[in-house]
Amino acid sequence: MAEQEVPPLIRSKPMNGGDGPHSYSKNSYYQRGAIEATKKMINEAVKEKFDLENTYFNTSKTIQIADLGCSTGPNTFFTVENIIEAIILKYQDEDISTSSKNLEFQVFFNDHADNDFNTLFRTLSSPPKYFAAGVPGSFYLRLFPQSSIHFAHTSYAVHWLSKVPREVIDENSSAYNKDSIQCSGFNIEVAKAYASQFKNDLNNFLNVRAQELVPGGLMVIIISVLLDGVLMAKSTIGMCYDFLGSCLKDMANLVRNYNP
Amino acid sequence: MAEQEVPPLIRSKPMNGGDGPHSYSKNSYYQRGAIEATKKMINEAVKEKFDLENTYFNTSKTIQIADLGCSTGPNTFFTVENIIEAIILKYQDEDISTSSKNLEFQVFFNDHADNDFNTLFRTLSSPPKYFAAGVPGSFYLRLFPQSSIHFAHTSYAVHWLSKVPREVIDENSSAYNKDSIQCSGFNIEVAKAYASQFKNDLNNFLNVRAQELVPGGLMVIIISVLLDGVLMAKSTIGMCYDFLGSCLKDMANLVRNYNP
Repeated sequence: MAEQEVPPLIRSKPMNGGDGPHSYSKNSYYQRGAIEATKKMINEAVKEKFDLENTYFNTSKTIQIADLGCSTGPNTFFTVENIIEAIILKYQDEDISTSSKNLEFQVFFNDHADNDFNTLFRTLSSPPKYFAAGVPGSFYLRLFPQSSIHFAHTSYAVHWLSKVPREVIDENSSAYNKDSIQCSGFNIEVAKAYASQFKNDLNNFLNVRAQELVPGGLMVIIISVLLDGVLMAKSTIGMCYDFLGSCLKDMANLVRNYNP
Repeated sequence: MAEQEVPPLIRSKPMNGGDGPHSYSKNSYYQRGAIEATKKMINEAVKEKFDLENTYFNTSKTIQIADLGCSTGPNTFFTVENIIEAIILKYQDEDISTSSKNLEFQVFFNDHADNDFNTLFRTLSSPPKYFAAGVPGSFYLRLFPQSSIHFAHTSYAVHWLSKVPREVIDENSSAYNKDSIQCSGFNIEVAKAYASQFKNDLNNFLNVRAQELVPGGLMVIIISVLLDGVLMAKSTIGMCYDFLGSCLKDMANLVRNYNP
């Protein structure tokens, strides 16, 4: 059984639920672009690397797929359909009829327990094209039984760290991130603290996935990156965050100096 | 893949979500009593019938459990813990150490897509004792891949039919249930319509479960029944429903005759 300690500072920040104008569901077109762009890469990866000869494939009649950090949709549905399409193509290329094999797909949609799974479930396609399940929990911990997932996917999610590094919020630390709502990269101690946290988180992520993936399976990780030497504060998104941070500080100062 | 037509009249009636004073979570003590009462029966059934020698058990390191019609908890959690306890006991009885076998449990909580899964997920035990997943959908259709569930459980759920029989709401039918909010049993045509719907639904339920359960697995169905010849209207709960129905009719008549 999965008896793991949940680190005390893990605080999930769920995407906005529902499907209203401020929901993630209606504000994730950029992320959808990435899904379209990676479709071809997923096809190629499945074609080259998915090992149908492996015992975990040829003894099982079910292919299990996980989308880690799925949010409320609909992007996760497009992703999953692309993956299933790629796997069916692979079977066809190897001249195996999926219907003669009675092949079935089970898809696990994972996100934090306070993600809006209700919206996710209500917007699943009907009739269902696969067996769907929601899996609540941090993807930095074990989520699935050993050797049970054939294809793991995560898109725009592993940049969400498991926690804010302690030193960044400690006023007495040289890594105290006093003037910024993000890691802009100007304070090298802050950058180091975040880099160390990311390294630690990604290490955990890879370790638990290694236990969950079947031998011969596949994992695709899509994540925003910066070229070496480029500061976050010099990127478009970094500038937006700094601008937003500056507005927030102005608003906080207004309240602090408010004297009716 | 599970391409099943969803019958047009299926309308789910979810239990009240959340954990407020009117929630199912706070109003299901009676159902909990049933769980306590059946604990010993589940232990005995697992001891006698669970077939650990079967290939689906001795080649798998994961036992998969499903609770069908789980609602929002907490009853489903008690049930699942009882089942896991019974299975571990069975392994001990057969002198197989579950830890040496690296045995893991994966639990699927199923209910309609408009069940409040968010509340269910937020009240899961932490740290988790098993790998949890929510599965949205009607249990009268396929929910899981073929031969994937070792233990299926359903408690106080299969009396929720997939739909109201057409003839019961058809004014021109002899089975029109004009004077009652329930099937009280007084009108034999109404009783027959409901009995026929139940037979049809249970038949579907058993057929799809037969595909999903592993050979040597186990299913426990807990359901309210009436002794042969006893009318629903003569049972305690039937009297309550008739009383409630009579109040609703009085209220409707008050509104109909309202003349300000």
